[in-house]
Amino acid sequence: MSDATAIPQHEVIIIGAGPAALTAAIYTTREDIETLLFERGVVGGLAAVTDKIDNYPGFPDGVAGLTLADDLRKQAERFGAVIELGEVTAIHDEGALKRLETTSGDMHAKAVLIATGSDYKKIGAPGEAEYYARGVHYCATCDGAFYRDKRLVVIGGGNSAVQEAIFLTRFATHIDLLVRSTIKASEVLQQELQKFVDEGKVTVHLATTTDEIVGKEKFVTSVKATKDGVPTEFTVDGVFVFVGLEPNSQFLKPTPVRLDEIGFVITDQHLQTTMSGVFAVGDIRSGATMQIASAAGEGATGALKLREYLEGHLHPTQN
Amino acid sequence: MSDATAIPQHEVIIIGAGPAALTAAIYTTREDIETLLFERGVVGGLAAVTDKIDNYPGFPDGVAGLTLADDLRKQAERFGAVIELGEVTAIHDEGALKRLETTSGDMHAKAVLIATGSDYKKIGAPGEAEYYARGVHYCATCDGAFYRDKRLVVIGGGNSAVQEAIFLTRFATHIDLLVRSTIKASEVLQQELQKFVDEGKVTVHLATTTDEIVGKEKFVTSVKATKDGVPTEFTVDGVFVFVGLEPNSQFLKPTPVRLDEIGFVITDQHLQTTMSGVFAVGDIRSGATMQIASAAGEGATGALKLREYLEGHLHPTQN
Repeated sequence: MSDATAIPQHEVIIIGAGPAALTAAIYTTREDIETLLFERGVVGGLAAVTDKIDNYPGFPDGVAGLTLADDLRKQAERFGAVIELGEVTAIHDEGALKRLETTSGDMHAKAVLIATGSDYKKIGAPGEAEYYARGVHYCATCDGAFYRDKRLVVIGGGNSAVQEAIFLTRFATHIDLLVRSTIKASEVLQQELQKFVDEGKVTVHLATTTDEIVGKEKFVTSVKATKDGVPTEFTVDGVFVFVGLEPNSQFLKPTPVRLDEIGFVITDQHLQTTMSGVFAVGDIRSGATMQIASAAGEGATGALKLREYLEGHLHPTQN
Repeated sequence: MSDATAIPQHEVIIIGAGPAALTAAIYTTREDIETLLFERGVVGGLAAVTDKIDNYPGFPDGVAGLTLADDLRKQAERFGAVIELGEVTAIHDEGALKRLETTSGDMHAKAVLIATGSDYKKIGAPGEAEYYARGVHYCATCDGAFYRDKRLVVIGGGNSAVQEAIFLTRFATHIDLLVRSTIKASEVLQQELQKFVDEGKVTVHLATTTDEIVGKEKFVTSVKATKDGVPTEFTVDGVFVFVGLEPNSQFLKPTPVRLDEIGFVITDQHLQTTMSGVFAVGDIRSGATMQIASAAGEGATGALKLREYLEGHLHPTQN
């Protein structure tokens, strides 16, 4: 009797319980593949803390984030998925089995799916957390359309901030772009931004730090900032923050699972990571779109790939 | 005045109106990108003709295919998508504009999304159409779980038939595999199949043609076949047909949009085809999974890529 026999063994362990993870679990458990999910935070991930989701396909009038998260959980549990609250802290490749260190002790799995998602980086200003999703947003594709004919502040100076500011001009009457130091976006994006500056749709404020997001009851009313050392205030209806993404992949850093320069998990055409039998889907994956529909879709595809792996042959989808 | 000015121009034309197309339209129109969809058959695609969908994420008790199709259509129309019944018969690359020949005349579009899907190839036996989705199925991942502890006939001898027959042993008590000539599947799959044959779970019938699918009211009861010239009958609860996929890409054959050897559209990491400004998503794309969730997810991702293209810069998703 070796110690290994004492370690609980699962067919599949999914790390995370957001839309990508839950969709994968719907697929694996419906096919009688025993599946355990580990969630360290909120079941449903970022979807669960989103007020209203307008663009998840299948809900003509939109759906409350919490409702969607709850329905995804119920659907996975209906087929037998088990969700454990806890954290996976390391993955070790032991060949046919992967050994996971978790807050519930060591566990073995035949295959592992990483679906830990990403968080939006915060600026840390007072009011930012308080008005989250009620005037403070991190995803223009998700929430930009709620700001038709409104005034916005956009915070950030990288590619995504400039690109999303340009995108938000579709909706907003005016955008104040607050840049802490100088604009780091590409030449092409800066040239495009200039067109909107010339039209008066966007005003760029360099060397400007955000001091506070001010609101009244459930709405944002203004943003207090310091520009070149001088306090100033912008009267707006909403704030979009684009200062980067924080992939939840810290626990993978000491492992052979390769990450890209930001920390997203690199996968091949089978959604397999550089550790055999370990796959990744959703917002943790390099190339992810931070869209629930895309994450759920990858969860489904990832589950099919996991099954092929467990059956002993990953192969092209068609033949 | 050239003739070209007489051709109606659209920002985006989407070819098809299944889950991938409708999801893309939800995204584009919600972002005020004017979008016209062309559908030659049924709005909702294969989803619309599926009785019950159990694994589309967000519906804990499953959803009727027609309901999901209708809800996807309503959601896209809510944001302004226009669906035209008709067919696109050719695409011409005129640089910044693409010219589409359609059953409503020529049209220009700044960008095009191909989402025409694929059909399952039929065997053409009597009863096949009549019992479609009520005992006759083409997708094991979708419908296999409805056959727990039942007997099945599986038709086909290629990689997918053998692979799916193996998969269906998870649910079915016994499978008769009807192969018209000899098994064409890979060595590895054949070896794996042999294990199930040895266990008595699968019986392989070579040189066997399917003559008729017989049912009573709403259920399949047996399959009539001819084996080595001798008529025979298999008493079963369901039939799964795996004789290939038929991508709806005939109209692309004379165009520079490259197809793979079966006829699926080849795309790059941006979901762009080999014709600049023309993208492809869902079951028409080479590598597709024939899953609604995956198709919808690609629709969302594809819409983001279309937007980037229209803005003049396709770029990696994160930065």
